[in-house]
Amino acid sequence: MTYKKKGMRAVGNPLGAEVRMKELGIDLPAPPAPFGSYVEAVQTGNLLYLSGMLPVVDYKPAYVGTLGLELDTNAGRDAARTAALGALAAAKHYLGTLDRIRRVVRLGVFMVTSGTVDQPAVADGASDMLRDIFGEDSLPVRSVIGVASLPLGVPIELEIIFELNS
Amino acid sequence: MTYKKKGMRAVGNPLGAEVRMKELGIDLPAPPAPFGSYVEAVQTGNLLYLSGMLPVVDYKPAYVGTLGLELDTNAGRDAARTAALGALAAAKHYLGTLDRIRRVVRLGVFMVTSGTVDQPAVADGASDMLRDIFGEDSLPVRSVIGVASLPLGVPIELEIIFELNS
Amino acid sequence: MTYKKKGMRAVGNPLGAEVRMKELGIDLPAPPAPFGSYVEAVQTGNLLYLSGMLPVVDYKPAYVGTLGLELDTNAGRDAARTAALGALAAAKHYLGTLDRIRRVVRLGVFMVTSGTVDQPAVADGASDMLRDIFGEDSLPVRSVIGVASLPLGVPIELEIIFELNS
Repeated sequence: MTYKKKGMRAVGNPLGAEVRMKELGIDLPAPPAPFGSYVEAVQTGNLLYLSGMLPVVDYKPAYVGTLGLELDTNAGRDAARTAALGALAAAKHYLGTLDRIRRVVRLGVFMVTSGTVDQPAVADGASDMLRDIFGEDSLPVRSVIGVASLPLGVPIELEIIFELNS
Repeated sequence: MTYKKKGMRAVGNPLGAEVRMKELGIDLPAPPAPFGSYVEAVQTGNLLYLSGMLPVVDYKPAYVGTLGLELDTNAGRDAARTAALGALAAAKHYLGTLDRIRRVVRLGVFMVTSGTVDQPAVADGASDMLRDIFGEDSLPVRSVIGVASLPLGVPIELEIIFELNS
Repeated sequence: MTYKKKGMRAVGNPLGAEVRMKELGIDLPAPPAPFGSYVEAVQTGNLLYLSGMLPVVDYKPAYVGTLGLELDTNAGRDAARTAALGALAAAKHYLGTLDRIRRVVRLGVFMVTSGTVDQPAVADGASDMLRDIFGEDSLPVRSVIGVASLPLGVPIELEIIFELNS
């Protein structure tokens, strides 16, 4: 789960997401499993909706607490990246290969914060990795919203919609 | 609005949602009415978006308060199911019959909680009923998010997208 | 950015959004710019997703604080309208003309409130303007959610999906 080439940017991503991930040294965790009556991915038309993704590894929260209190901006960025890795793992589990993804359409970022944290910087922990994998011209729309609490006490939850190649 | 056969599961739902609802003893309330300049359902392509659904009956909140304080997990489950019944009523009002629904795509669950509540268990109050009606292989993606407040002081709000048969 | 004819309603909007905006005396601000690794608009199929829109003018927050404390319902309505104007500016920047918009599909309204504010009335600050521009029969679904904090300290954030003419 290391992430070697920070700041490197793909433009147009002609190589495909799988090759890009190898280049970037990104390994995916095991795909997340549901905590209730739902699934992690649903395809409708050429859109792939994912469940809210938490920074969970092996069914346990990898980060717990409030951004700005127990967790600083850097920890928040790491938590966002961990949740995004779970999203990629869920998508790959459903699709077989991330090369079927054409772009990220939407990234919703819900975070528990004391209010003193740089919310966009935290969200970039997920956005930057997705940009590096899918390319600069595949950036999604994004919403960042400070909420009261999240399941398992985690500080961040991501909602992602992918568009698939048709 | 009773709900008799808990735990019973439809697989593939060959019978259609309307027959399943009769089997389960589920009666729908009157469809909800907007509190402002919006509508309860919008179809785009074969997706049916619903407005945020509250546990409201006859235009009045059926549950008020915070989960974990005034309302326990069971009350939260009931509130989630009440909001989901409103969603079904809104969809039926728009579609004429719930048999036009192919699956639930997304279930967003926003709840006001003190933090000590089992959030996934509360959300399952809506998810379990939707599963029983639309079938085990029609489970949606889901996000659960703890928020600061909701309209009318209710503890839960659902965002639902249905996919329709084309 | 004045808004002259309150209460006037278009039915069916035969004239197109651009003519309606001129009639209503609505001028658009400069389109918003991203605060991180994302874009303001993404089209997938005939849907146009926008990033979470804040009441920001010239990259600075036009309203800061909590609804019900520093900001009353009227200020909240103005903030909602300001964010909606940013959304229209972002859509126009992407599309070239708002006449390509067929309807608003979804309006998500996230607000920071003390709990004593009329949340639907605040949300109508955005909804009413969109109704006046796109017509009474193009009303979206809507969710209103009270959250803990929003980027830059603003009291409101809007999530909008438009459907485009095909």
